[in-house]
Amino acid sequence: MDIKSVQKELKAAKLNGRIFTLGNMFINEDILPEENRILELTKFSGSYALLFITPSKAYLFVDGRYELQAKKEVNLRQVEIVKLSEISFFEWLKNNYAKTAARLSYNPWVISQSALDNLQKLLPLAQFIPVENAPKLLSTQKIKVFTHQKKFTGHVSKDKIASFATHIKKLGLDAYLVTDASNSSWLLNLRSTALPYTPIFRAYVLVEKNGTYKVFAEHCDYEQALSFDKLQEHLAKYDKLGADFNTAPAIIKSFNTKVKNIPDEITGLKAVKNAVELKGIRNAHLRDGVALSKFMYWLSKNYKGKTEIDVAEKLLSFRKKELNFHSESFATIAGSGSNAAIVHYHATEQSNATLKKNSVLLIDSGGQYYDGTTDVTRTIAIGEPSADMIEKNTLVLKSHIALAGAIFPQKTSGDELDLIARQPLYQKGLDYEHGTGHGVGFFSNVHEGPARISIHAKRSAEYKAGMITSIEPGYYKENAFGIRIENLYMVKANKNPKFLHFEVLTLAPIDKNLINKNLLTTDEINWLNRYHRQVFLSLKKYLTRQELEWLRFACAPL
Amino acid sequence: MDIKSVQKELKAAKLNGRIFTLGNMFINEDILPEENRILELTKFSGSYALLFITPSKAYLFVDGRYELQAKKEVNLRQVEIVKLSEISFFEWLKNNYAKTAARLSYNPWVISQSALDNLQKLLPLAQFIPVENAPKLLSTQKIKVFTHQKKFTGHVSKDKIASFATHIKKLGLDAYLVTDASNSSWLLNLRSTALPYTPIFRAYVLVEKNGTYKVFAEHCDYEQALSFDKLQEHLAKYDKLGADFNTAPAIIKSFNTKVKNIPDEITGLKAVKNAVELKGIRNAHLRDGVALSKFMYWLSKNYKGKTEIDVAEKLLSFRKKELNFHSESFATIAGSGSNAAIVHYHATEQSNATLKKNSVLLIDSGGQYYDGTTDVTRTIAIGEPSADMIEKNTLVLKSHIALAGAIFPQKTSGDELDLIARQPLYQKGLDYEHGTGHGVGFFSNVHEGPARISIHAKRSAEYKAGMITSIEPGYYKENAFGIRIENLYMVKANKNPKFLHFEVLTLAPIDKNLINKNLLTTDEINWLNRYHRQVFLSLKKYLTRQELEWLRFACAPL
Repeated sequence: MDIKSVQKELKAAKLNGRIFTLGNMFINEDILPEENRILELTKFSGSYALLFITPSKAYLFVDGRYELQAKKEVNLRQVEIVKLSEISFFEWLKNNYAKTAARLSYNPWVISQSALDNLQKLLPLAQFIPVENAPKLLSTQKIKVFTHQKKFTGHVSKDKIASFATHIKKLGLDAYLVTDASNSSWLLNLRSTALPYTPIFRAYVLVEKNGTYKVFAEHCDYEQALSFDKLQEHLAKYDKLGADFNTAPAIIKSFNTKVKNIPDEITGLKAVKNAVELKGIRNAHLRDGVALSKFMYWLSKNYKGKTEIDVAEKLLSFRKKELNFHSESFATIAGSGSNAAIVHYHATEQSNATLKKNSVLLIDSGGQYYDGTTDVTRTIAIGEPSADMIEKNTLVLKSHIALAGAIFPQKTSGDELDLIARQPLYQKGLDYEHGTGHGVGFFSNVHEGPARISIHAKRSAEYKAGMITSIEPGYYKENAFGIRIENLYMVKANKNPKFLHFEVLTLAPIDKNLINKNLLTTDEINWLNRYHRQVFLSLKKYLTRQELEWLRFACAPL
Repeated sequence: MDIKSVQKELKAAKLNGRIFTLGNMFINEDILPEENRILELTKFSGSYALLFITPSKAYLFVDGRYELQAKKEVNLRQVEIVKLSEISFFEWLKNNYAKTAARLSYNPWVISQSALDNLQKLLPLAQFIPVENAPKLLSTQKIKVFTHQKKFTGHVSKDKIASFATHIKKLGLDAYLVTDASNSSWLLNLRSTALPYTPIFRAYVLVEKNGTYKVFAEHCDYEQALSFDKLQEHLAKYDKLGADFNTAPAIIKSFNTKVKNIPDEITGLKAVKNAVELKGIRNAHLRDGVALSKFMYWLSKNYKGKTEIDVAEKLLSFRKKELNFHSESFATIAGSGSNAAIVHYHATEQSNATLKKNSVLLIDSGGQYYDGTTDVTRTIAIGEPSADMIEKNTLVLKSHIALAGAIFPQKTSGDELDLIARQPLYQKGLDYEHGTGHGVGFFSNVHEGPARISIHAKRSAEYKAGMITSIEPGYYKENAFGIRIENLYMVKANKNPKFLHFEVLTLAPIDKNLINKNLLTTDEINWLNRYHRQVFLSLKKYLTRQELEWLRFACAPL
């Protein structure tokens, strides 16, 4: 399918436009490239975008991370790029369609009921017309489904389901449809090979108040699974059905018009990791830190002539040697020189650059271990970086430390924390056009809510002890270089339980060649020295003698 | 009236309880002591409280500022004090009455329509019964109403009303009732002598879409004013009437059941000061700084044997000598030693203490000048303060500087800024139980929204260039001492207009005898030195030779 054929269909059906979101029936989850309609239609390969096609034009909406990338990838004569940093998709729609009885089409399997409700509220005169009625899961392989063992999860699925059924009963419901695949995976203690980086089992779970349940999934070896064409028949029979309209596709409401919007409690439950999970997460980060440090040592000796793809592959090879490693948690971003200024750059065969001398390499990567998910970014000097690079990296480090060392009351939400991180950059008139942090799943999505640290996430979920978050401020100079320093942290209660703070999980040196000590306060220097001491003491027994010498130097006090 | 007679009435009418708020028909504005029903019933004299009386008990709800004071003032055998820091009034009501068909009474002239709607939503089974039907403005004097001249306001009332009428028309309304007295005062460019500290004209203004208007007020020499008993007759005739339910008392809806809730746009307009107002505000702060510095010099020579009331009176005598001075902007808080630990302490003849040696004096005061309202707190060493006092004062100063020097994006709201101020205290396990800042009116309320800086003000109004705010972190050690450092700031657009920052208005030295330089970063020391240089250069030509020598020393670099 291409834009022209969509436009032909629009004209034939007398429609004013069609909305494309980047997703499948598992709203907000990762998708396979073959499921990506926006990629198919525009060639834009980023992980977030919206596309609106009218009979004569096409508009691609991208955020700050992807503005440069979109310009490079799409046919600008056919597609106009709209910057979400300047106007939201909703504002744009409102400006163009609020006063007309527009006829707009959408795929009811890939737009959530909440999104549809919001669209209708936004454009009360418009008519929204569903145009596809089958889900679009295009796995070509037979997906393997496997158990996430109790030694990792701490709780068996049977107990999770029993407790969830009690919750359903308390709500006065007959049944609840879990549509968020990561929630289904958590509830069933099942994972799968469907996606390359996110081991979730892409399934809906229909749980009845008595604790019986049915699993809906396709293309997989999970034999009890029912196919999605049975969904309508199973949902129709309940008088009191609940589902979370933020993750339930709009089609669900056509299967059961009485379905009530009840936020899925699993979203909050699974975000707070239990003691077994936390122990695993710490261990996984230790192993990940070993792999990363071995890689950094290797890089220090071997960067000459290596490409971005070379180093990403080398890092993966180190991770693969570690216990419980399953896969990367996302496609490694290894950006050298100006490529690193593209926030979510992924080296392709065309773009793949040899590491630029006297510049920086930004490497953002992570692992899915059965006992934890990691995500870490280091910016590493290659040769002699410029004073500008060192200054900006030091400011980003100040931002990182400002938030990593923050103490904040219970009930604080992410937008309140974001400003703390950005202060050191704001003071110099600098900023970064992405969030400061995201929640992290447990052998699940590397980006997993409900909490996130973003100035745009007003009224986002409150932080609770046991949650995991990234802290990842950055700085990007177009056509020059890019910097990001990212660690994962666990949220912990203070001695005074009214307050929370962050405890670091990620264990890998932060490159001192990119730090101007004169720009740091004593407290900041102490933070870095303490962190490096912890990294060194944690990793030292897992390294070779040469690696250890390198680490000792990398972790020596400033 | 006393609690027992209220209880008798409740029993006679078979009511389960009565809600008393601290206010009159001008919701959220200052009131006269004789209008204060909570004072009358409980003897609690603080500026904020809620009272709930049942046939057998009475509950007084107070916030962190007033916990100590309430304990001292009320009869604890009759009144139970409930801490709002532990439970909100609404949560408390919900816990006690959500499941009962309680009959609860209230005065419809002093509870806003929004508050009543929220109460009904909170307690859907309860019945809310209005029990008084006349307003309660008890001025015993004839109030003088006077014009706030154009040379101060920048705009004449005629133009403000014409532009407001256009707004009413745009909204599709026939008329709008302004019930917020500070908005009425702004719209009419009128002020009055009704209140000792807040020069607002306590009036409602009914503006029609064609620009004609009527003023409702009582006990005053404003001859065109209609009395409030005419309100019903005038409001009843409109098909499309608007009012702001946050400031319109519930009785308005009984006068016109079709009245629509439309936020009063004047609230936002008057918060953003115009160029004439801002020039005046700067000048007023200069004069206020002169008065305060003269006072501080006098205090340094004369503190021995002086009482809290003595110093408050002396400070007032200095302010009275300044041009355009009208009154204090609130009753000066002068707290010595442990009295300063009571956040909103006011010395009475009973409590009035001689200044304690080797302690601190906290003095929070302000002036109403025709060209601006001031509000400033200084904590001043008397004799040799303890190391603990110096440490805590330095931490409070760090808090102050952290926020005063912040740079933040447009659309930032107060709860997002609050955490920045509290970080230095949180880091030491300390906190203060009051907001960090409040908006300030222009020859109007010293506390005037919509913006305020508080962790509790989630989703409060966004900051805009031209707004005025206080920054006033503190620290209070019960039975020992209290510290607060407060300046007013104007919100200013940065060079990069996406960002805002604060520009200081208050000009008075911060006591260096209470600062431990070793606890400050270089940036913090620079901030203080720059501020002191600005204070010195601004004030120097208005002082006597001795005062100048004192100021030069007080403002010398750390």
